[in-house]
Amino acid sequence: MASESGKLWGGRFVGAVDPIMEKFNASIAYDRHLWEADVQGSKAYSRGLEKAGLLTKAEMEQILQGLDKVAEEWAQGTFKLNPSDEDIHTANERRLKELIGETAGKLHTGRSRNDQVVTDLRLWMRQTCSTLSTLLWELIRTMVDRAEAERDVLFPGYTHLQRAQPIRWSHWLLSHAVALTRDSERLLEVQKRVNVLPLGSGAIAGNPLGVDRELLRAELNFGAITLNSMDATSERDFVAEFLFWASLCMTHLSRMAEDLILYGTKEFSFVQLSDAYSTGSSLMPQKKNPDSLELIRSKAGRVFGREDKEAVFEVSDTMSAVLQVATGVISTLQIHRENMAQALSPDMLATDLAYYLVRKGMPFRQAHEASGKAVFMAETKGVALNQLSLQELQTISPLFSGDVSRVWDYGHSVEQYGALGGTARSSVDWQIGQVRALLRAQQASTPLPPALK
Amino acid sequence: MASESGKLWGGRFVGAVDPIMEKFNASIAYDRHLWEADVQGSKAYSRGLEKAGLLTKAEMEQILQGLDKVAEEWAQGTFKLNPSDEDIHTANERRLKELIGETAGKLHTGRSRNDQVVTDLRLWMRQTCSTLSTLLWELIRTMVDRAEAERDVLFPGYTHLQRAQPIRWSHWLLSHAVALTRDSERLLEVQKRVNVLPLGSGAIAGNPLGVDRELLRAELNFGAITLNSMDATSERDFVAEFLFWASLCMTHLSRMAEDLILYGTKEFSFVQLSDAYSTGSSLMPQKKNPDSLELIRSKAGRVFGREDKEAVFEVSDTMSAVLQVATGVISTLQIHRENMAQALSPDMLATDLAYYLVRKGMPFRQAHEASGKAVFMAETKGVALNQLSLQELQTISPLFSGDVSRVWDYGHSVEQYGALGGTARSSVDWQIGQVRALLRAQQASTPLPPALK
Amino acid sequence: MASESGKLWGGRFVGAVDPIMEKFNASIAYDRHLWEADVQGSKAYSRGLEKAGLLTKAEMEQILQGLDKVAEEWAQGTFKLNPSDEDIHTANERRLKELIGETAGKLHTGRSRNDQVVTDLRLWMRQTCSTLSTLLWELIRTMVDRAEAERDVLFPGYTHLQRAQPIRWSHWLLSHAVALTRDSERLLEVQKRVNVLPLGSGAIAGNPLGVDRELLRAELNFGAITLNSMDATSERDFVAEFLFWASLCMTHLSRMAEDLILYGTKEFSFVQLSDAYSTGSSLMPQKKNPDSLELIRSKAGRVFGREDKEAVFEVSDTMSAVLQVATGVISTLQIHRENMAQALSPDMLATDLAYYLVRKGMPFRQAHEASGKAVFMAETKGVALNQLSLQELQTISPLFSGDVSRVWDYGHSVEQYGALGGTARSSVDWQIGQVRALLRAQQASTPLPPALK
Amino acid sequence: MASESGKLWGGRFVGAVDPIMEKFNASIAYDRHLWEADVQGSKAYSRGLEKAGLLTKAEMEQILQGLDKVAEEWAQGTFKLNPSDEDIHTANERRLKELIGETAGKLHTGRSRNDQVVTDLRLWMRQTCSTLSTLLWELIRTMVDRAEAERDVLFPGYTHLQRAQPIRWSHWLLSHAVALTRDSERLLEVQKRVNVLPLGSGAIAGNPLGVDRELLRAELNFGAITLNSMDATSERDFVAEFLFWASLCMTHLSRMAEDLILYGTKEFSFVQLSDAYSTGSSLMPQKKNPDSLELIRSKAGRVFGREDKEAVFEVSDTMSAVLQVATGVISTLQIHRENMAQALSPDMLATDLAYYLVRKGMPFRQAHEASGKAVFMAETKGVALNQLSLQELQTISPLFSGDVSRVWDYGHSVEQYGALGGTARSSVDWQIGQVRALLRAQQASTPLPPALK
Repeated sequence: MASESGKLWGGRFVGAVDPIMEKFNASIAYDRHLWEADVQGSKAYSRGLEKAGLLTKAEMEQILQGLDKVAEEWAQGTFKLNPSDEDIHTANERRLKELIGETAGKLHTGRSRNDQVVTDLRLWMRQTCSTLSTLLWELIRTMVDRAEAERDVLFPGYTHLQRAQPIRWSHWLLSHAVALTRDSERLLEVQKRVNVLPLGSGAIAGNPLGVDRELLRAELNFGAITLNSMDATSERDFVAEFLFWASLCMTHLSRMAEDLILYGTKEFSFVQLSDAYSTGSSLMPQKKNPDSLELIRSKAGRVFGREDKEAVFEVSDTMSAVLQVATGVISTLQIHRENMAQALSPDMLATDLAYYLVRKGMPFRQAHEASGKAVFMAETKGVALNQLSLQELQTISPLFSGDVSRVWDYGHSVEQYGALGGTARSSVDWQIGQVRALLRAQQASTPLPPALK
Repeated sequence: MASESGKLWGGRFVGAVDPIMEKFNASIAYDRHLWEADVQGSKAYSRGLEKAGLLTKAEMEQILQGLDKVAEEWAQGTFKLNPSDEDIHTANERRLKELIGETAGKLHTGRSRNDQVVTDLRLWMRQTCSTLSTLLWELIRTMVDRAEAERDVLFPGYTHLQRAQPIRWSHWLLSHAVALTRDSERLLEVQKRVNVLPLGSGAIAGNPLGVDRELLRAELNFGAITLNSMDATSERDFVAEFLFWASLCMTHLSRMAEDLILYGTKEFSFVQLSDAYSTGSSLMPQKKNPDSLELIRSKAGRVFGREDKEAVFEVSDTMSAVLQVATGVISTLQIHRENMAQALSPDMLATDLAYYLVRKGMPFRQAHEASGKAVFMAETKGVALNQLSLQELQTISPLFSGDVSRVWDYGHSVEQYGALGGTARSSVDWQIGQVRALLRAQQASTPLPPALK
Repeated sequence: MASESGKLWGGRFVGAVDPIMEKFNASIAYDRHLWEADVQGSKAYSRGLEKAGLLTKAEMEQILQGLDKVAEEWAQGTFKLNPSDEDIHTANERRLKELIGETAGKLHTGRSRNDQVVTDLRLWMRQTCSTLSTLLWELIRTMVDRAEAERDVLFPGYTHLQRAQPIRWSHWLLSHAVALTRDSERLLEVQKRVNVLPLGSGAIAGNPLGVDRELLRAELNFGAITLNSMDATSERDFVAEFLFWASLCMTHLSRMAEDLILYGTKEFSFVQLSDAYSTGSSLMPQKKNPDSLELIRSKAGRVFGREDKEAVFEVSDTMSAVLQVATGVISTLQIHRENMAQALSPDMLATDLAYYLVRKGMPFRQAHEASGKAVFMAETKGVALNQLSLQELQTISPLFSGDVSRVWDYGHSVEQYGALGGTARSSVDWQIGQVRALLRAQQASTPLPPALK
Repeated sequence: MASESGKLWGGRFVGAVDPIMEKFNASIAYDRHLWEADVQGSKAYSRGLEKAGLLTKAEMEQILQGLDKVAEEWAQGTFKLNPSDEDIHTANERRLKELIGETAGKLHTGRSRNDQVVTDLRLWMRQTCSTLSTLLWELIRTMVDRAEAERDVLFPGYTHLQRAQPIRWSHWLLSHAVALTRDSERLLEVQKRVNVLPLGSGAIAGNPLGVDRELLRAELNFGAITLNSMDATSERDFVAEFLFWASLCMTHLSRMAEDLILYGTKEFSFVQLSDAYSTGSSLMPQKKNPDSLELIRSKAGRVFGREDKEAVFEVSDTMSAVLQVATGVISTLQIHRENMAQALSPDMLATDLAYYLVRKGMPFRQAHEASGKAVFMAETKGVALNQLSLQELQTISPLFSGDVSRVWDYGHSVEQYGALGGTARSSVDWQIGQVRALLRAQQASTPLPPALK
């Protein structure tokens, strides 16, 4: 009979359970991550029961000490799971009963399994959000430091994988760092909604035994309490939000990885990955593959579209690894300044050539057309755009004069882009300052002291 | 030659373009929603150009008046699209040129198409977020009003579609309303990140012509400006966030619809949908289908997993319709109080029976087991749980005494659940107050005056 | 130096590898499922090398015996993984070298890791497809057997969760069985594309050492060989196809589970799940939850949208469990014939009432309208549809006469639906025969002898 | 009253319908694609009704002529939709009634809307599958023709975007063509399951009026009839299969596009897109963007994850355009043979160097290590791999001798890869022959004469 094995729903069943069904239903394989949160939650709840008069002070003490012992066993790796432990909550309660006897049976008074599962999950995710925030800030800081140090390196900015305009290498680094600041902002918002206490909601109707939810909130340091007991036990918005957060963050890391894979090809040769983040081929002896970057890219696929609680654990581990690998990659990446400089070509200044005409009074649409004609003329003649003679340029527009030669200077080109957000040195400095200020502000607003695992 | 048809990239192409390719590339079919935002953005930009000395005051006036005329044509439905207008931005500029001549060619100075597209999209989405917030608040308010009016109606709360515990009908309504308040909170966060000015970012390098982005921000009433020009022109996080917001909101509406579909079946008969939200069958004359609810549910599938700009327009329309239909459904829904009352059965008080024993001092796990035995005994004897005699109950536990009869009162049962968030009348009142306060706070924090389309 | 730990890419690296990166890259946790396929593939390849003159007969024998020993260790659970074994392929080759020495180093001649990975995966998936086919046929057979035995039980057919028309219980069972026959047809198609040999494709360029791919194909009993070596090593269409197959099959099982959950509610009470497939509640003693069905439904979500190799192992396990649980559920389900009969109500015969008028010559659209008026009249008068008097009906249409009373017989109603595919007994028998014939045909066409794990 | 506007469910409703709800429910915007299929299906059904004695011959003729007139109006663009036409089926029947009067009302006898919708959709999709097959074959044929013509062009094969081994350009073309042959195989399988007649299934119970489904099947040229009426009216597996097919096909086209985008960058410069498939930039005059390829790639995202009937129309249009654009791109692409040749570098022959040692008797693992050492030595000395002297090589292994110079010939390298599927000329010729044979076989097995729209 099912009750013999100590199943929670005890006294009523008469048939045996299909063993495939049992295995199917068990979540212990992944929810053991929750052991610490489960002990924390149960300790708080036993204090609530004592205050409500449902436990004596002595019973409470007995339970608290038993739970501390359970935690100690987990921490030391000596906790033994039974085959009949279907989840972490059952396992801990079973062990508590072995340790302190029948009093353990009072701990679940007025608390449903859902109550407990969702409280534990929120406690665990709150800590995870803090850890990931710290790792994310570390990555952003590495990128900003590097952007500051290498402000004077120019290289081609691309659109559609075609060379577009000269930009600073730091401008590229900051474009990715800025995207990541949105991720860290969003992570704090997710954490805010994670940090709400559901405990005291019972199965669906609430708690009928006078448990003080405000006391539970304070014990567990939650920011607020859930408003409706039915909603509280069933909603998993915060899981969906966390997974969406991870998807978006991975999209950003994946795009950065994609750029770096390309910049590291023989054909581009702008950057070189450290050996610590590369691997070789089992067949081709000369190969050195950017596996760290490819893994970042492919992990993105694994993060998208997950929907369940199990996903939270896996996605959290993935994000933690990916953020650390990305930080390692960025901090050890070698750049090839000469190749970067050589990749700049005069046709990338065609926009500047149009602006030259604009400054002489030509409407932009006409200037764009005129500059396009110059590009076409140079292509047809087989010369670089800056090798067209003044006479040749003047067949396109009489507005060209001797000062056009000043257009052909890449350093001068980038310095023009001085509006906020642009690639001029002053603007890059402004960006660095803004991102640093953002990080400080975000760090100040986290509900938990940030911690590394 | 391509330039003859006035394509923006003018002077360089010599081959003709595959017509399938042209159609393939055109976005005009859906981005005409943006006409108003496009005119607004261009007006602000021409003011920026004038301040930077790239337009004379007279040229600026000419452009502003031309753009007003374009807007008027759109508003009156007289704007005529040309086959060569590949998007709304090209169309408006083409028309402006017809209206005011060559000066129109100066409007695009230093502005890239991406600059313009993303500015327009953000303007449009900011408005959309306001509209949807208003509709969502309207729905929540309807639900809360109804919850307040019908606080005294009890019916079965279900878990796993099995009758679980008696709850208030209002508790069910509030469980869905509370979920929706998270959606409206999230929508404000999305809107905050939508409400950032990208204009002045050029193609990727920034704006080199001294345009004052702070002036553009103020003109267009944005809350902040983007930090990095490469990121600004390429990032679509706010689109992904909006679509995720819509998915989550639709999940909530879909769950509510699912409950109502069930409650409206012949077998449950708790609610009856207004004819205004039902349809019939072309074959079966007696059928009255809950099509409004099924559409809400099925639209959820259409919202999930969309990723592109085009999706924004469709999803926005869907959300707008769904929110209004849901408000209509809730406000016209008829409830069958008697059926609700009759669906309450004594076995739903088995948890209360266990609590009865807990209050007499039995640990909860034992009490749960004892109550389970009572259920089994009643089933075996073929009687209702409350028809077991005291003697029979005492064979299970000597703690049962005459006062057990008080357990069998549904009204008394729900009133026990007085902890915050529970289904007791006081707690339901507290929830109503909390949700109302939340709505007021959210409404106060919106960046735009809320408006209906 | 990395080569000391025996990494495959040996001689070139000088930096150490970030340990997070190593863990990140390792797949051994899930690809150990492939041990048997890996040994099989390597044995075939060593035969290919011997025929090409790259191994002597003695070397081949040494390798074959070594591989048999490796397999034996896996089978007996004595194989010991080293921390540096990053995948199953490395692990097996490392062990082989320990067992037979340097000759092991010849096994990888001309074979790339991709070559090996994809061959092993195809071997494993071919077996998995066979196993799942067998389980799926078993489920279909159970459903058809039950449909045959309970052909005479009538109950309401629903559309939009509203009672629509009387049907046979077997008709419902067969509607789900027929859907599953499409799944088994598709699984055979997937298996056909899985069953193609990639081995001999090298890294991308092919095999340069005269290995006879036709010999490899025959050794490993594949149905064909891949056409292009670049495509062969990179394509994972068969993985995507398998995952899509699983999604669609889970959709069908999920829909069936959804129906059964509903039919098992107190409100419907048509079926009762065996205790072996139910669980209780930790809080509410009276609850008996249809967890098996809910798990089937929720597992569907876990199957959708997975994309990677890792998913194949998990999804395969899920499908295997789900099919067995579904078979168990169907074979032990108890049906409540009386409740089913009582749920049939006269308004479900409104379509038949319209057909009655059609048979008297009225166009269907008018007959549908007339029958709708009768339903409305009955509702207004508060009587059942079959309690309207002939006089009352004749106010709607003079075509009604005394023989209308024959309409009100549910058994007569279903017997009308005799066209192929309908719910008449003859048609249900035809369906049973068709499905059985399909199963026999599918079973005959499988490339492998079907086997249970 | 709703019935006044001619709604199909006529006589029963008394409330008005919320106009948002009506718009929400209407599908006419996208299902007008089905007009031809709807007329076809209705014509067949009226023949079935006549045979069953439910229409006289004269009534049938009247209906057939009326339907022909409806079709004519659609074909000539003169069909006028009414605001109350909620879908194509209602519209056609409404028009038929205007044209021929009350007899039109007999056409729907025993046919449900679902019956009709799913029949029409299957007819339309069968034709779509044929059209897409033809376009796909056209693309594959173009690729194979090109592969045959340019068999002697060598260029680098890449893995992980790193140069791996020399291969033929044709080998790359064929790797993508072979992937597409799987798509065309799968499309035929989808079409086989589309090509099944559901008509005659009624609402759920089947057809009670003696309609001969075999006659309907023959009239509409379907390959088989559905087995179960409940399943037939509700299943949309064929829609899911079609959308999955499109996803996988788009994945292949998207990967090909990605390669070509890269090969077309300034840095790679292997290919040049025709102007007919490129566009420019509105800001940067020198830009020529590979928009056709980027659109192919981005359309992939739009195809994934769609689930509804509406998606079928959009995805079908997308696939049709994408296949034609891809064919255009491939047939007009210019290749730069010299750049391809120059991109081959001696380190790509490191695998061949290892094979050289293998042929001299060294186990592959040692040979891989030795070749890796040679690569490292060349890198350290700053010379190309083929510039190491024999003496230098012999410090690595005494097996190196004068004949090692033969390794450094790219043409010789590729010719080694003669196993089936490899990049040797003989193997490429074999691939071309195999793909051509496959196309012929697939073309022969299509159920419909292939046709272009």
